[in-house]
Formats: sequence, C-alpha cells, structure tokens
Amino acid sequence: MATIVDVAKLAGVTPTTVSRVINNRGYISEKTKSKVHEAMDQLSYQPNEIARSLTKQRSNTIGVIVPHISHPYFSKLISNLENEAAKKDYKIILCNSKDTATKEKKYLDMCKSNRVDGIILCSGNVEYNMINTGNIPIVLLEKNFEKGKLGIQCDNYQGGCLATEHLIKCGCKRIVHFSGVIDEEMPADNREKAFIDICNKNNVEYFIKKFDINAYNEMNYYEYIKNTLSEIDGVDGIFASSDLIAAQVIQVCYELNIKIPKDIKLVGFDDVEISQLTTPTITTIQQPIKEMAKLAIHLIDAKYTNTEILEQTILPVDLVVRRSTSVE
Amino acid sequence: MATIVDVAKLAGVTPTTVSRVINNRGYISEKTKSKVHEAMDQLSYQPNEIARSLTKQRSNTIGVIVPHISHPYFSKLISNLENEAAKKDYKIILCNSKDTATKEKKYLDMCKSNRVDGIILCSGNVEYNMINTGNIPIVLLEKNFEKGKLGIQCDNYQGGCLATEHLIKCGCKRIVHFSGVIDEEMPADNREKAFIDICNKNNVEYFIKKFDINAYNEMNYYEYIKNTLSEIDGVDGIFASSDLIAAQVIQVCYELNIKIPKDIKLVGFDDVEISQLTTPTITTIQQPIKEMAKLAIHLIDAKYTNTEILEQTILPVDLVVRRSTSVE
Repeated sequence: MATIVDVAKLAGVTPTTVSRVINNRGYISEKTKSKVHEAMDQLSYQPNEIARSLTKQRSNTIGVIVPHISHPYFSKLISNLENEAAKKDYKIILCNSKDTATKEKKYLDMCKSNRVDGIILCSGNVEYNMINTGNIPIVLLEKNFEKGKLGIQCDNYQGGCLATEHLIKCGCKRIVHFSGVIDEEMPADNREKAFIDICNKNNVEYFIKKFDINAYNEMNYYEYIKNTLSEIDGVDGIFASSDLIAAQVIQVCYELNIKIPKDIKLVGFDDVEISQLTTPTITTIQQPIKEMAKLAIHLIDAKYTNTEILEQTILPVDLVVRRSTSVE
Repeated sequence: MATIVDVAKLAGVTPTTVSRVINNRGYISEKTKSKVHEAMDQLSYQPNEIARSLTKQRSNTIGVIVPHISHPYFSKLISNLENEAAKKDYKIILCNSKDTATKEKKYLDMCKSNRVDGIILCSGNVEYNMINTGNIPIVLLEKNFEKGKLGIQCDNYQGGCLATEHLIKCGCKRIVHFSGVIDEEMPADNREKAFIDICNKNNVEYFIKKFDINAYNEMNYYEYIKNTLSEIDGVDGIFASSDLIAAQVIQVCYELNIKIPKDIKLVGFDDVEISQLTTPTITTIQQPIKEMAKLAIHLIDAKYTNTEILEQTILPVDLVVRRSTSVE
C-alpha cells in the first residue's frame, strides 16, 4: 500500500506538505494541493486512520454488543444503528455475546482496548457493577436503567396497555400472555405488568406463561405454546411479547385447527419483518427502533461535542393493526 | 483511562517492564509479572490495541460489506461471519451498502484507511476493475468470480436442480420460477438455468418471472406474485429463489384461496429462519452459510499464516423438505 512518502515523492514535495494537505493545516498553494491530490489518486493512497486515531485520541468507532445477531429484532436494530452511525462518520464493530456474561465481558474489554468512542450494550448478563468502561460512554439499550449509565428503552408498559386494550376491544374475554424469560429481570417485564393491570381493570380472565432461557436462545417456543393451548380451554385472545413468538402461535393454532383471527385474536410485539410475512399478518406493537438507534448514537456523540443530554429516555410505541385481530 | 505509565508506577517498575510483560518479551521474574498483573487489574488497564496494531502492522479487523443488514439471509451470514471471526480473534466492522455503488466505494476506502486485514464483499454494484484494495485480501461472497480475487459461492446450479426435481417428483406439471432481478448478473442466475434444464429434460411446462430492483431492495414481491398467479392458469408448482419470496407466495395464495401444498407445491431457497416460521413451513434449499463464513475468514487469515488456499470455491447445497411440498 502506498505511503505518505510515496505520495510526496511523486508530487515532488515533502511528506510534511502532504500531511498538511491531508489535514488541511497551514498555508498551501492551490497548485501544490492539486499536485498532492493527483499523486494520491494515482497511487490510490488512503490516509492511515489508525495512525490518525492515535494522534486524535478518537477512533470514530462504536462497539455494539447484542445477544443474537440473527434474531430479527436485533438485526433490525443493528441495521438502524449502522445507518445512524454512518451519518456521523462512526464505524460499527459488531459483537455477538450469545447471551453469555463471559462473552459480554470479553467484548467489553475488547472495545476498551480498541479505544472505541462508545459502547451500545443490548445484552445484559454481566453484572452492572462489573462494567467499568472508564471514560468511554456506554448506552444500555432495552436493558434496565442504571444510575450513572446512559439508557434507552421503549415504553414497554404503554405497549402492554395498547396490546391488551386492543384485544379487549376486539371482544376477547380469556386472554393468554406469552411473557418473558423465567428469572430474568428486563424492561420487557413491564409489558406483563400492563397486561395484568388492564385485564383486572376490565374484569377479563387472564393467564401468563413464561419461557425457559433455552427457548429464548434457540428462538423455539413451539412446544410451550402447544402445551399452553392444550391445557387452557376457551382462549380467545393471545398477547405474545415478541413477533417471533406470535409467528409460532400461528403455526401451533394451524396444527390444532384453531383459526386466527376467527377463534383467537393475536397481538405480537416489536414490529419486525416477520409480522408482515406470516399468514395472517400480525397485529403488533411497533418499537421506535429508528429513533432508539438515532438517540443511542447521539448520546455517544454528545460526549465529544459537549452537547447536553438526558441520561435516560423512554420512547413511546405504537399499535399496528394487521390481519391477526381483524373482526371479520 | 489508565495508561502503561500508571500501571508501572503502581507496580513499582518501569513502563518498559510493563510493556515486556504484556507482550511476553524478554526475561521477567514471576514475582514482577504478578505485581504488574495485579496493578493492571486494580487500574482495570487495557492495552491500547490501536497503538499495537500500528506497531504490528495488523489491525485484526475484517470489513464486511453487505447490501442489507436486516435481510434474513445477510443477518444469518453476518452472525456466522462474526462467530468464525471471533474464533480467530478478528473483529468485524459492519458496513451496509444499501446496494449502491457509491456507498460500496466509500466503505471500501474506509476499510483501506482503517488498514483492515481483509474485506468480505457481499454487495456487488461497484465495478470489479474499480476495486483496488492494494495488498488487503478481498473475498467476493455469492458474487460472480473475478480472476485474482478470492471467491466463494454456494452451488446455485445444483440448488436449482434439487428444487425443480423435487417439485416434479411431487407431481407438478406447470411450474413457475420466481427468479432474480432484471438486468443484474449474479451467481443466483444459475438457479434459473438449472430450472430450465430440468423442466426441459422432464417435458414439464414452465414460466419464469423476474423482479424489478425495487422489489428486491424493499423486500416486497407481493404485487408481482399476485399478478403472475392471476395471469397464469393451472400452476401447480412454484420455485422461489429466496425464502422471503416464498413467504410472500404463501400470503398471496391465502388471499387468492389457493391451498399450499394441496393446490400448489412450493420450494424456496436459502433456509433462513423465516422458512420455519411460516404456515405451512417452507421446503427449501439450504445454503451452507456456516461453511461459507468459515471459509471466508480462513481465506483472509491464510494470507497472514502463509497457508495455501484455493482462490475460488463452490460449496454444495442441500434440499430440506418441509410442509409446503408435503403430499397429503
């Protein structure tokens, strides 16, 4: 690869002059500038960003740690984070923790060693008091808030209300909620709290089923759903805490010869691609993923531009009505 | 953040000694080593990988450029690439080209400036002769092979044969193939070639429909499929060149009151998550994504370990039979 010395030689100037042109520092005549640029083009020279980041003490890199890259929610989130990061000239280093504390810890250390400008953590197994990122800002995304750390969540409680109220408005009287993971505390638990509150307020019968961590990690809820629907009679509404679960509810119902939306109305959560690809399509709660991604990048960038920020933010969600709850 | 000087001060040794401990160079007594490690722990010191990569002339970073992060095929691929890269201590810088030549070019330059150890390019709009990555190895993944560049493809022709033969074995006599994008040459075109060959060989009637680039970029094929199925009578088999298209075939058929698999048998391509989440589940051609990812990382790593490699490889695919072709 061509170096600054090669460029200088070809342009007939000193390496210092080339460096000044690249960094736009000091007075350089237009003629010299264009000679240098021509030489750079001819040699397809690329400035060494690694050397520059050492000098500037900025790497323009953001570490993103997720539990599962190919989970549709996280792949949509990563796509939005990359997009918002690129707008501000940040690169994304992508890390898949596979939902384990050991890998999270390893990736957090890697991010520190590589002097990232910020970390976005969407995987929460490592204990918060074990996280010491020094002066690197860390954003906890859809994780429980922690004093002194930046945090972004969608309004999970509002989402739970919207979903449950919609089912009740569609006439449901016996509703099952497929909730979060047993023994794991997360912001998504507020969906369940809202579900209980709204059912009680409306005197509607309800049932809550939680999953084992393996079901979550393998994204396979089929048997759980099947057992639940076989055990509980007369269910006429289901609120699933992800679209992935909702898609599998459709499959189980098909196998059990239960018709959606005729026999059971179904609402999911997230509004990922899948909710539009199933038959019927899934009514769901739309997380403001684009806004969440934009804010996450902004919170990191703010540190370097001395912009005032709110440490913790909860963003509103929306109900998106599709076929799985249509009253035909 | 703690520096090597802080560590040295706390451990009561010189910075050079700390550096030797970190890099495992020269003789250091066990006692000194443990003093240094204790100080590093206490200060939660992380070696500066940026400075190290300047010295070593290696960044241990691989740039991955895809056209769409949230497309299920690419999110599965990215997940596998990250996994294989981590095994060899490479970090992934993720770039979303949105299928445009301008962004590809920009990301290729960014990868060069950041002195990545290799580039994996899955987005092919920039003209090959415009790609000059100097001595950085570049792997073209599911893109047309190019002399002098590393390349990996799955056996698209074999996949087309397996899919079409399976439909014919299920009794299909009038088969539609939803193929690639109009005016774009890609390895996936070999699926169509195989489809034609197998249909001709078996005297089966066939129809081919290609899509507009917008349908691909927006991942929305619904209207195309609906028009096709309304125009062509008596279709009894469909071979879709992705599971994403196949999922939308199921939706259109439901709307048109065509039963899958009773009236039409359906085969997809890729074997991504979605093929198991639709109702019915989708019979498909499984791309060996894990092996493709592993090989891509190996091809890059080989450059630095002087391992002999094959420049270009085509990996075999498999037929996975699910409900969308079951003969009930």
